[in-house]
Amino acid sequence: MTKSAKINIGLLGCGTVGTGVAKLLIENKQLLAARVGADLNLKWVADIDIETDKGIQLPDGVFINDAHKVVDDPDTDIIIEMIGGEGIAKDLILKAIENGKHVVTANKALLAAQGNELFAAAARKGVDLAFEASVGGCMPTIKSMRESLVGNNIKAMTGILNGTCNYILSKIADEGISFKEALDQAQNKGYAEADPTLDIEGFDTAHKVAILAALAYGMEINLDDVYIEGISRITPLDIAFAEQFGYRIKLLAISKFLNDRVEARVHPTMIPFDNLLTHINGTVNAITISGDAVGDICFADTVPG
Amino acid sequence: MTKSAKINIGLLGCGTVGTGVAKLLIENKQLLAARVGADLNLKWVADIDIETDKGIQLPDGVFINDAHKVVDDPDTDIIIEMIGGEGIAKDLILKAIENGKHVVTANKALLAAQGNELFAAAARKGVDLAFEASVGGCMPTIKSMRESLVGNNIKAMTGILNGTCNYILSKIADEGISFKEALDQAQNKGYAEADPTLDIEGFDTAHKVAILAALAYGMEINLDDVYIEGISRITPLDIAFAEQFGYRIKLLAISKFLNDRVEARVHPTMIPFDNLLTHINGTVNAITISGDAVGDICFADTVPG
Repeated sequence: MTKSAKINIGLLGCGTVGTGVAKLLIENKQLLAARVGADLNLKWVADIDIETDKGIQLPDGVFINDAHKVVDDPDTDIIIEMIGGEGIAKDLILKAIENGKHVVTANKALLAAQGNELFAAAARKGVDLAFEASVGGCMPTIKSMRESLVGNNIKAMTGILNGTCNYILSKIADEGISFKEALDQAQNKGYAEADPTLDIEGFDTAHKVAILAALAYGMEINLDDVYIEGISRITPLDIAFAEQFGYRIKLLAISKFLNDRVEARVHPTMIPFDNLLTHINGTVNAITISGDAVGDICFADTVPG
Repeated sequence: MTKSAKINIGLLGCGTVGTGVAKLLIENKQLLAARVGADLNLKWVADIDIETDKGIQLPDGVFINDAHKVVDDPDTDIIIEMIGGEGIAKDLILKAIENGKHVVTANKALLAAQGNELFAAAARKGVDLAFEASVGGCMPTIKSMRESLVGNNIKAMTGILNGTCNYILSKIADEGISFKEALDQAQNKGYAEADPTLDIEGFDTAHKVAILAALAYGMEINLDDVYIEGISRITPLDIAFAEQFGYRIKLLAISKFLNDRVEARVHPTMIPFDNLLTHINGTVNAITISGDAVGDICFADTVPG
């Protein structure tokens, strides 16, 4: 990847997730060096706000507010994009790719809407565009699908991929409170945004299933063809009735391959109690992948995704 | 890996698992070629019994009974060892490594007892010794630990890694039958061997936790230091009492890193109902891995392991 055994990393965006990544690169530096066989050097951290203390110790000159300087630096090998959104993040990723850098991003909204353009650019330049964290928090879903399950025809995927929705539905089920009360609690705990639309109306989950389906079936990402229904109309009565009949209601991302066609949808679903996914509660994410060789394998993750 | 885009594979041992691997390489050949970018060609299948119909269609001359011919063939790139046991399997793996071939094995008994010698030989020759299927059936445990979790200090692992034991304990819990009756049922269904000692006394699980602990903590494999207790003394009463107090009894593989020491043990364990592992029943395998960056991630697998 580099001439020497040093790999220079430029981190763009130092919010909650970006700060976590920076901390990991600093605190587990020796472990990473031993396992990777190279020094992963955090050369740049760029953020619009360089005044607030992020709680990380960086050498002088590392923390800057000019992200363009980072993607233009010829000595930087990997760009980690943690800005989010589809505007400046896209411009910076494309510029980094054009400059021959590998890019890591967790930006599912951008990938779902404009990923085809980004992946094509990366393929043209022969660089990696890595996106494991875009789907399913810390579960190794993307890598497993691309590598471990390479010998499988993927028949179906069923996932709980939005921690906010799963928290809200779990709260309604466990405490019998209203959707509004459960949403308030999620917001108070920092699990839901001030404007929760992206989560509760299913769009975030749809971004993820669009990315997964494209990967599983070797297609272009096509968000417009995903059927989307959120959880805002779910009442405690719906959940109580479902439980009486032996079901739990979860917001599921579902993708299936049937008769040479791919189905991708997001909606509240009744799952029987003997399905492992009914036991995935709170902010936990999980996904079941069905392959023709492996049968069903399931990943679950306690880190909100 | 090879000069051309063709990779020749030699399969040693054509029992249940070996036959499954051969079928997969034949039936998903096009899929694998498209995803891997090379033709994975099943050049040899060697077994001591070449009379019985294995239910697979092979070109003339592929199915032979001389495994040494396979590991000595200069045109064979990868050896898949599916013979099992520590005798001939070890000799063939060492010979294949000496001949510069990559080796794939699911032979946990051999790896747990003599893996250090095999891994050292592979490192000397610069070839891969791949062993994903040795632990946890189809769950991508080994690859995830080596690659996806590379930035994590692994703090603990807790696994249900023997489908036979989990089936027996689930049967006792669900139907109140005795250990002996549950074992009989497992044997009738083909989940347990005629001599079930390796499974029910915890040795198979110990092989797996020895391999996992070595991998997680960068140590040599040390089976002798694993505490082992099986399930043969568990009664329906034990399980009923545990359930009254809110626990389920599972045979767990446990490994922890504490005060610079590694703990590895296998024994029946009471798990509280709010732990996901209590919902892993029948022949299903599962493992929870705790890392300092990812928190707890859990894999489960419906294929008996």
